[in-house]
Amino acid sequence: MAVDLSPIDASLLEEIANIHGLPKGAFNIRKDGKLVERHSSANIEIATKTDHPGIDITIADGTRGETVYIPVIVTQSGLKDVVYNTFYIGEDCDVTIIAGCGIHNESHQASEHDGIHTFHCGKNSHVKYVEKHYGEGEGTGERILNPVTNVFQAENSVCEMELTQLRGVTSTVRDTNAELEAGAKLVLTEKLLTHDDQTATSNMKVVLKGKDSNVQVISRSVAQDNSVQVFNPLVIGESMCRGHVQCDAIIMGNAKVKAIPGIEAACEDAMLVHEAAIGKIAGDQITKLMTLGLTEEEAEQEILEDFLN
Amino acid sequence: MAVDLSPIDASLLEEIANIHGLPKGAFNIRKDGKLVERHSSANIEIATKTDHPGIDITIADGTRGETVYIPVIVTQSGLKDVVYNTFYIGEDCDVTIIAGCGIHNESHQASEHDGIHTFHCGKNSHVKYVEKHYGEGEGTGERILNPVTNVFQAENSVCEMELTQLRGVTSTVRDTNAELEAGAKLVLTEKLLTHDDQTATSNMKVVLKGKDSNVQVISRSVAQDNSVQVFNPLVIGESMCRGHVQCDAIIMGNAKVKAIPGIEAACEDAMLVHEAAIGKIAGDQITKLMTLGLTEEEAEQEILEDFLN
Repeated sequence: MAVDLSPIDASLLEEIANIHGLPKGAFNIRKDGKLVERHSSANIEIATKTDHPGIDITIADGTRGETVYIPVIVTQSGLKDVVYNTFYIGEDCDVTIIAGCGIHNESHQASEHDGIHTFHCGKNSHVKYVEKHYGEGEGTGERILNPVTNVFQAENSVCEMELTQLRGVTSTVRDTNAELEAGAKLVLTEKLLTHDDQTATSNMKVVLKGKDSNVQVISRSVAQDNSVQVFNPLVIGESMCRGHVQCDAIIMGNAKVKAIPGIEAACEDAMLVHEAAIGKIAGDQITKLMTLGLTEEEAEQEILEDFLN
Repeated sequence: MAVDLSPIDASLLEEIANIHGLPKGAFNIRKDGKLVERHSSANIEIATKTDHPGIDITIADGTRGETVYIPVIVTQSGLKDVVYNTFYIGEDCDVTIIAGCGIHNESHQASEHDGIHTFHCGKNSHVKYVEKHYGEGEGTGERILNPVTNVFQAENSVCEMELTQLRGVTSTVRDTNAELEAGAKLVLTEKLLTHDDQTATSNMKVVLKGKDSNVQVISRSVAQDNSVQVFNPLVIGESMCRGHVQCDAIIMGNAKVKAIPGIEAACEDAMLVHEAAIGKIAGDQITKLMTLGLTEEEAEQEILEDFLN
């Protein structure tokens, strides 16, 4: 690679975006608040914002089968990196967007990255968005990630959002908002793992504005040790629509989990459902895997990976 | 009857407490903020409170198979009746408590009844509590009912609470709180019907403090016309316990329903689940009943009654 990436950088990029070296096609790699390398493609233009730190990603009508990568890494402690990334996705597209943030912190000072991502998804387009958050390093400094995700879906667009917090994130406040026009469909999957004394708060608000709009929210989380998680997903049905919210949490050790999913029907033809369950791993699941030769720890790990993947 | 009850009074009492004339055993009938008639039994003593308006109902240890009635009626408009009723239920009891409030209002002035009911439920006792709220009258004056229900359950006690708002209540804010010690079980069923421009808010907080405590919250509601309902049930698991919250709402016309059930696990061995669904009556249910000879209106009525009963 022409660019200056250390082994730690390369390892973080692999963890959060599954990148080995520089990706093909359009990409933007940000490190410690600065651009490392950028590449636009014929259909996907990446430009520096003029009003805020961050980039505008413009995807031409009819772009199909392309992937754009916009990972961020933070290795400098004491840095608070705030970035605004806005996606303008044209009509009739079928694209994949790979984002994510990895923090490596060896210091006692906090490292923070707040990514404000806004998606304007054009008519009939299909967008898959994958975002992974990860923290590592032996320092006592906090690794903080406060993402904001705003999604505006035009008629008959489909968005699949997969938001994952792998591990190592000291504290996170996640805000996700979406508005769906007629016929639009959103599948929003959030997976969180917290451990030690970490805290995670996830707020979501999805407004089903248009006729036959449809949202499925799937939240899966594991809270270990002394960590605390709070979930506030809210789905509002303003027209004939369907919404389904499902929160499942596994609690371990002295962890605490609070789930307060809201559904609000403001139309007779809205059909909204939510379910939530908090509990520990079922003992018989562990026993079953142990009879197959796994230790108790291996069995537990196997069940957790299965639950989160 | 020796007491002064008008045909309207008798009709209200029948609606809310299924009483024809004076009941047998212990009872306290309150009308327009004043005592109408009271009767204590050998095991159940009803006494006027000395500090607040209201009564103390003391049920002796080992009382079994008895019922106590404490209905309230309001026929005087412009009245705001606030009453504190406290139940001291001994150990090893098996009793039924019938409460309820009926308002008849022919005026343009509001009538309001706020009943603050507190239950101290002794060890190993089984209490069934039935409360119905109902409003009627051609006046434009509001019929307001703001009940507060506090339940303290000692070890291995069982409470079944059935709280129902029949119809005709202009506005209600309902607060229900419960704390359960080890082995205690609570089944809390709330049924609400709102219509016209009525509003209903139901807040519930159940704390599962003791080992093997168990709560089941069942909320069923129908929101018609322009009415608005908000549900905030919260179950907190502080020990090895089980909690299940189920909210089902039928929405009709321009009504709005918001359900925000919370579950909070503060112990690895807490197992908490909630489910909520808001939607309209399924079209095929109506069609099925219409093929059996019912009109569309009759079919709808049949389904609603079935849902609420």
